[in-house]
This record gives sequence, structure tokens and C-alpha cells, in this order.
Amino acid sequence: TSSGVFLLQMGWGDLGAFGEPSKETPNLDQMAAEGMLFLDFYTANPLCSPSRAALLTGRLPVRNGFYTTNGHARNAYTPQDIVGGIPDSELLLPELLKKAGYINKIIGKWHLGHRPQFHPLKHGFDEWFGSPNCHFGPYDSRERPNIPVYRDWEMVGRYYEDFKIDLKTGEANLTQLYLQEALDFISKQQASQQPFFLYWAIDATHAPVYASKQFLGTSQRGLYGDAVREIDDSVGKILNHLQQLGISENTFVFFTSDNGAALISAPKQGGSNGPFLCGKQTTFEGGMREPAIAWWPGHIPAGGVSHQLGSVMDLFSTSLSLAGLQPPSDRQIDGIDLLPVILQGKLIDRPIFYYRGNELMAVRAGLYKAHYWTWSNSWEEHSKGIDFCPGQSVSGVTTHTQEEHTYLPLLFHLGRDPGEKFPLSFASEEYQQAVERISGLVQQHRATLVPGQPQLNVCDQAVMNWSPPGCEKLGKCLKAPESDPKKCSWPH
Amino acid sequence: TSSGVFLLQMGWGDLGAFGEPSKETPNLDQMAAEGMLFLDFYTANPLCSPSRAALLTGRLPVRNGFYTTNGHARNAYTPQDIVGGIPDSELLLPELLKKAGYINKIIGKWHLGHRPQFHPLKHGFDEWFGSPNCHFGPYDSRERPNIPVYRDWEMVGRYYEDFKIDLKTGEANLTQLYLQEALDFISKQQASQQPFFLYWAIDATHAPVYASKQFLGTSQRGLYGDAVREIDDSVGKILNHLQQLGISENTFVFFTSDNGAALISAPKQGGSNGPFLCGKQTTFEGGMREPAIAWWPGHIPAGGVSHQLGSVMDLFSTSLSLAGLQPPSDRQIDGIDLLPVILQGKLIDRPIFYYRGNELMAVRAGLYKAHYWTWSNSWEEHSKGIDFCPGQSVSGVTTHTQEEHTYLPLLFHLGRDPGEKFPLSFASEEYQQAVERISGLVQQHRATLVPGQPQLNVCDQAVMNWSPPGCEKLGKCLKAPESDPKKCSWPH
Repeated sequence: TSSGVFLLQMGWGDLGAFGEPSKETPNLDQMAAEGMLFLDFYTANPLCSPSRAALLTGRLPVRNGFYTTNGHARNAYTPQDIVGGIPDSELLLPELLKKAGYINKIIGKWHLGHRPQFHPLKHGFDEWFGSPNCHFGPYDSRERPNIPVYRDWEMVGRYYEDFKIDLKTGEANLTQLYLQEALDFISKQQASQQPFFLYWAIDATHAPVYASKQFLGTSQRGLYGDAVREIDDSVGKILNHLQQLGISENTFVFFTSDNGAALISAPKQGGSNGPFLCGKQTTFEGGMREPAIAWWPGHIPAGGVSHQLGSVMDLFSTSLSLAGLQPPSDRQIDGIDLLPVILQGKLIDRPIFYYRGNELMAVRAGLYKAHYWTWSNSWEEHSKGIDFCPGQSVSGVTTHTQEEHTYLPLLFHLGRDPGEKFPLSFASEEYQQAVERISGLVQQHRATLVPGQPQLNVCDQAVMNWSPPGCEKLGKCLKAPESDPKKCSWPH
Repeated sequence: TSSGVFLLQMGWGDLGAFGEPSKETPNLDQMAAEGMLFLDFYTANPLCSPSRAALLTGRLPVRNGFYTTNGHARNAYTPQDIVGGIPDSELLLPELLKKAGYINKIIGKWHLGHRPQFHPLKHGFDEWFGSPNCHFGPYDSRERPNIPVYRDWEMVGRYYEDFKIDLKTGEANLTQLYLQEALDFISKQQASQQPFFLYWAIDATHAPVYASKQFLGTSQRGLYGDAVREIDDSVGKILNHLQQLGISENTFVFFTSDNGAALISAPKQGGSNGPFLCGKQTTFEGGMREPAIAWWPGHIPAGGVSHQLGSVMDLFSTSLSLAGLQPPSDRQIDGIDLLPVILQGKLIDRPIFYYRGNELMAVRAGLYKAHYWTWSNSWEEHSKGIDFCPGQSVSGVTTHTQEEHTYLPLLFHLGRDPGEKFPLSFASEEYQQAVERISGLVQQHRATLVPGQPQLNVCDQAVMNWSPPGCEKLGKCLKAPESDPKKCSWPH
């Protein structure tokens, strides 16, 4: 059975099936109606790189190295001056799937390090079309090069130069390119009856948000909605392609997101986390609870709904299981195999850990969520208009100083209070029982935790994408400045 | 064609189909899947009595008298010391439907005045099982009598005394009684091939929230969720009954709410307004945008979605249209006939007016909403913990003083910003065009507005439900104190 994972930046509330009021995602809603909706599904981190590393390793970022110790509880990712990336010691899903004869392709944003040793084709992927970093820019080629777009081992151009993104109109045809890549890849594997793993990691809903000309202006929701509509349309085309080729019953497809909607970019470049608190960068529900749909016609009963606490890391274990493989036994794997949930409706008791950098901020067990630390961002940033919780403010919860609650965690019941607005009374029996249970889980977790070497501590302008492989043929090599490694600055 | 209207207090975000994360409303979700979802549907006022008066008269509360002039922009309703009620000059939907031979029944909360002249059977209903006021209590029978429950002309008991509501456990079997009434009424009309109008105006989700024993503890969402589940189950049973009796294709059914979820009662007694701002009592989207579903098998295409700006007042005009009747031509009717929308997918251009008491607070036209006044509640109330926007605070928008924006309205684009968090720049062309258009609509509206005699100004303890008709037979008459009419106090 082949696997496909759609991963993008989108909020829980961005899909019609999840209550977005404009209801403009007919294909994703249809995918949900034909498949299974996961309502309690989480990413592994409130931002992109660490979540993606977690998905592909099945391990928390604090284990696989995708975090920083430069400051306490700081979000960190892989901008192009980052020195680190995915360690060779980590076993990635495509590396393992290869053993079962899979062909693996990543389309879109890799984000696990852009230096040569971190190249996706060195970590199990057979093909790549996309970029190592976010499509920020345009840059001037002196202070900073534009981000390269790779086909397999070599670059084929750079964003803004060869792959246009019009920041004024929001026009870019990248999603169409990514769509075509996916359709072609699937056709090829079907023709050779080859099991495959396709990781469609597109980024049109990540600022700077873009859409193709045919989608611009089609949404009630503005440019962000145009991008969502194009993605929705593309997902529909990919699923339809699988059906047309007659391989939909042999292909497990999962749709989810690497972090909550970036409310800091709203309304033009950011989406919706529905009824949840705050957004990307935070460990409130809006930062880490994700839309999630499993689709596998003939196997998953149509219209299913699951309240299983799920994680992007489960896609690692589930994909291995589908390939008849066991997860590595020489290391801690945080993902679980969701097949019993999906096929037999089981509910597996497991906690969700909400990390921000090197700190365990919160833990969910059942319907209870305990916050051990709260922080949105600093007063200093907030006073500059950087706001991860626009229009939302819960006293003592969305704090602008890092508040420790280790000895008396803030407790929420996410069934009665999905928006994390009403902490339970410390004196209640309910509080005491729930916190006792969660504290036990935390102790267990901490006792076995071996943090990985932090990869996101050191930045150096010399490592930027000056001269990616293939630049010579294109005349796109740039001269790197001298090496000047420093601690990366992670303000939140 | 018969009509059924389900009306209750529930928030936009309380249904699975509208994105409630626990997704516990399979019957309402099924109703939506078989019928048409209205995503831009509004009540006529952010609280119950005026909305119910508007539904039954097809007219804004400021026209039909369901407002107060005791203070500026104050919410008012019909507690049992209210002197006013629905004026005889108003023509109610059931009065008109009678002319087409309909039998009309109200089950549940009337809320249009409890003094004899306001009795629903004097205003077109043929049958009633329910109460004139909210089920607040229990009262001591000296300061205040318990609210009576009527069957048709006479009371059959009182809440807490004869119709138990256990405030500790939340147990009450009232929804089951209301369900049985509905099923029996429908059976009877079907047997005699009688067209009917059933107004199922139940109140289990209104504080004090209650559910029957069999539903208590069944929801992830606590007691409020238990109440929602019981209502969901009842709606399913009623729709199923229509189908079993073979009259579903002759019965138009509409489900909606009289105001947004009362966040002031959350989390135990209040629901969810999904991604919208604030709740009941406010003219933000959370106060007046409602879940809405039209169901009419064989006529409405299954799985339909409409972005028609709709109003509870439209149920007046639509029900008349279904009965082959014209709305009265001697007065302004604010409702529109939704049949072209429902049956032919048309979109009718019309504004939505958001009133709070005697003040037009805001207007929506297309996707734009202009606030002419903003107010959540006073600092004085807020400091006592009365909060209509818990966890939400939008600077200059959720104000705690009444702020006038008449000359420079606050403008929101509800497609890009359904949560009313990002006002448009006053200097933008988009702002100027939208406000110009909306100002024209306001002028037009004001020019033809003839406010009704305000019914909610005077309160008198002597008019309370001391001796409702039928009390003698039950030995339930209480002695009224002397008349002492005063201005009612409406703090928000």
C-alpha cells in the first residue's frame, strides 16, 4: 500500500468541514466525507521545521535535534543561515520505506536543513521538486541569496528570479507546478506497479501567500482563501487521479498541517484556528491542533470521525505499518500506528506533549490539558505589533512573560472549554485527579527522555544558499561571505 | 405544505456541521446533509424575546415594540414583571396561516408577554404546551411566583413545583415532554390531513441548562453538551417521524436559534459561537449569527449550502409563501421569502440590521459589516465579572463604554475576517466604497422607519404569574402584591 501525506500550513478552522464560515473547500470536505475526520490531531511543534522533522522521524523535535537551547522555550526553525539540519543518526520514514521497495518523493518545502549533508536524497527520498527553505524574499543576492528550487540533486532556479512570486498581486503558479509533479509521479509509479511514498509539502498558505491567476480573487476570504481554494482543488485532482488510475484502494492518503494558522499574518496572509486559542508559535490549541483527514477508499468507512489523540508523528508509524515494516527498536519513537484507530475504530490512550523549543509547555491526556508554562510572546515584541493571539486575551494564560506553573499547572477541560478560557479551580477534586494523572505521564516522559544534539543553535551567513549544486550550469552561483558563526537569535 | 420551526438558544459553533470540535450532533448534521446549510443567517436581536417577536411578526423589534427606550441601546426582554407584550396591532404568522386552514401549535417558551391579552392562543396559535417566560427559579411564591407551564388556555403546573428542574444535577425531563408533544401533534395533523405550523421553541440550552437523565453525562462538553445532545436526538426523532408518516415531502422544516451562545454562562451553561466575536447580548457576530438548516426532502437538494444573508424574520415570509399567502401589505415587513434561495439557489441582495434596543448598532451588506456603535457592556458590570466576550478583547471594538462611530463607522470584511478583529483602514478605497453603500442603506432604512410603541419599558411586580388562568383548579393561585409600576432596569 502506497502512502501520500499532504502537509501544509493551515489552521484547524480553515476547512469547510471544520466550520470555516465561507465553506470553500469542497474537495477537502469530500475527502472527509469519504474518509475519516480526526478532530483531536496535533502537530509536534507550533512551527514548521521541527514539525516536519518530527513527521519524518516519528520523534519529538527535542529528540531529533530540531530545537534550540539558545534561550528558554524558544521557537526555532531552519532559515538559510542555519548551520544545523537533520542528523545522519536519525532514521527517516523514506529511508525505512525503501527497504520495502518504495519509491519516495518530496514535493515542496523540505525544511530539514539545506547544507549538502542534509539533502533529502541523502535521507531516503528518491526524488525532490521544491525548496529547502521558506519562499521568503526577494533578496538582493549580496546580503542574501534567493532560495533555490531543486529538482532532485540540483537546483533548477531560484524563487523570484526563475520561479515568480508577485508579492503585490499574490500571483504565483507554484501550486500548479507542485500539482503536476504529483500527478506525474503517481502516474509513473502506477505504470510500473511500484509502491510509493509521496510527501506533498506545499506552502502556498505560508506567508508570502500566493495563488495562481485562475484562483486569484475567487475566494470570499481574500488572498489567503484563494490559496486555500487552489490547494483544495489540487487535493481533489490528486485523489481523483488515484481513483482514475484504479489505485485509490491501495493508497493511504493523509491530509494535515505542520502548525496552526499564523494569526500574526491575518487577515491577508493568515487563516483560522476556529474556536481555538491563539495561533502558530504558541502551545495553545490554536498553535498545534490541526485539521486532519485520512482517506483510503474501501478500507476506511466513509464519514468516519475519530477523537483519537493523534500526532503528525503517527504518520511515521502508520506508514511503516502499511508497508509491513516495524519502527526502529533502537530509539524512542513517539508516533503510534493509527491503523487500529482507522480500521477498527479503536481509541488508544496516549498523551500529547506540547513543546516550545527545549521546554515541555503543556500536556494533554484525555480531555484534560495541563499547562506547565504559558507564554505567547514578550511585551517587547507585542508592543511592536507582533501578536500571536490577535483579539484574544485570557488573563494569566496568554501571558507576555514566561510564566512557570510547574507546581500548580493550569488545567483546562477541552471538551467543555476548547478555547482554553476557563482554567479549572485548583481546589476541585477534578483538578487534583487530572493533574495527578498528567504529572505521572510527565515523570515517565522525562525519565526516558534523551534530548538530541540541538541543531538550531548556530547561524552563519556563509552557509546560505549561495552556490547550491547545479548553480554552475545555470550561472546562478553567488559568492559566499566569510564564515562568521554565531548563536542564532530566536526572539520568541 | 406544513411548516415546522425549531428555535432555541444555541451558538453558531455548537453543531458538528458548523465545526464544534466534539462533533456530537449527528442528527442535526444529518439534517444539514439532507437539506441546506445557511452560513450567513441572523437572528433579529442579540437576545430572546425580541428575536421571537421578530420571527412571528416578520418585523424588526423596533417596529413591533419589542424594545425599550429606558436607556440608550439597552437589551430588554420579558421577565415576569414586564407589563408589555405583543401588541394586538401586530399580525402574527399563525394568525395569517389560519386563513389558509393551518392548525398552529407552539411548544415551549412563548416570551411575547404573559398577561392575558398576550396569550399565544389570542394571537393565532391553536395549541400551546410550554411557558410564557424563561425557566428561572426556583422562587419563594412570596417575592416571586414560579413560572407556570400552560396547556392551551390554562396552566397545568409550575416549574420546580410540578415540572422538576434539579439545579444541582441539571436533570429535567422537559425536552422529552416537548418532544412527545411534537410527535403527538404531528401524528394528529397527519391523520386528519391537516396542514400545520409547529413552532418548537424549547429552552434546554438556556440557563439553567438541563437534560434528561438518559442524556446526563453523555457529552464531552459537560451539561451544556448533554442538553445539546438531547435536542439533537429530539430533532432526529421528529424528522424521522415526519418521514415515517410519509409527510416529509409536504413539510418544510427550519432549525435556528434566537441568539448567539450565552458566553457569560460558559463553560457549564453556555455554548460556542465558533470563530465569531463575543456572544449573546452583543451585536458582534457571536451575538446574532446563528446556525441554520432548511430541510424539505424532495424539494431542497441534499447537501446544499447558501450564503444568502438570512434572518429569522424570513421564516415569517417563507412560511406564508409556502401556504400560498401574501405578507400583509399595510405595514413594513422585514422578512423576505427564502424559497427562491432554497429551491433555485438564488442570492437576494438585502442588508442585515443589528439593533440593540432602540439603536441601530451595525449593518451588514454583502461581506461588509459597518459598526455605527460599539458596546459589550459597562465597566461597572464587567468589573463584577459579567463578560459577554470572555477571553476576547479587540481594541476599540469590544468597548466597555458606548462608542459612537456614526461619522466614521468601523468596517469589517466578514469573509477575510469573520472574527471582527481587523477593522479596515479609513483611508482605503475599499472602506470608502463599502461605507458609502451601507450609508445609503441606512438612510433608506431610517427614512421609512416607524418605531412601534416600546413594550419593554414598564415593570410591575403585580403583573407577575401570581394567578394564571387555571390556577384555581390546581390550588396554585398566589396573592399578587399591590401594583407598583416602574421603569424596568436594563443594565446592558
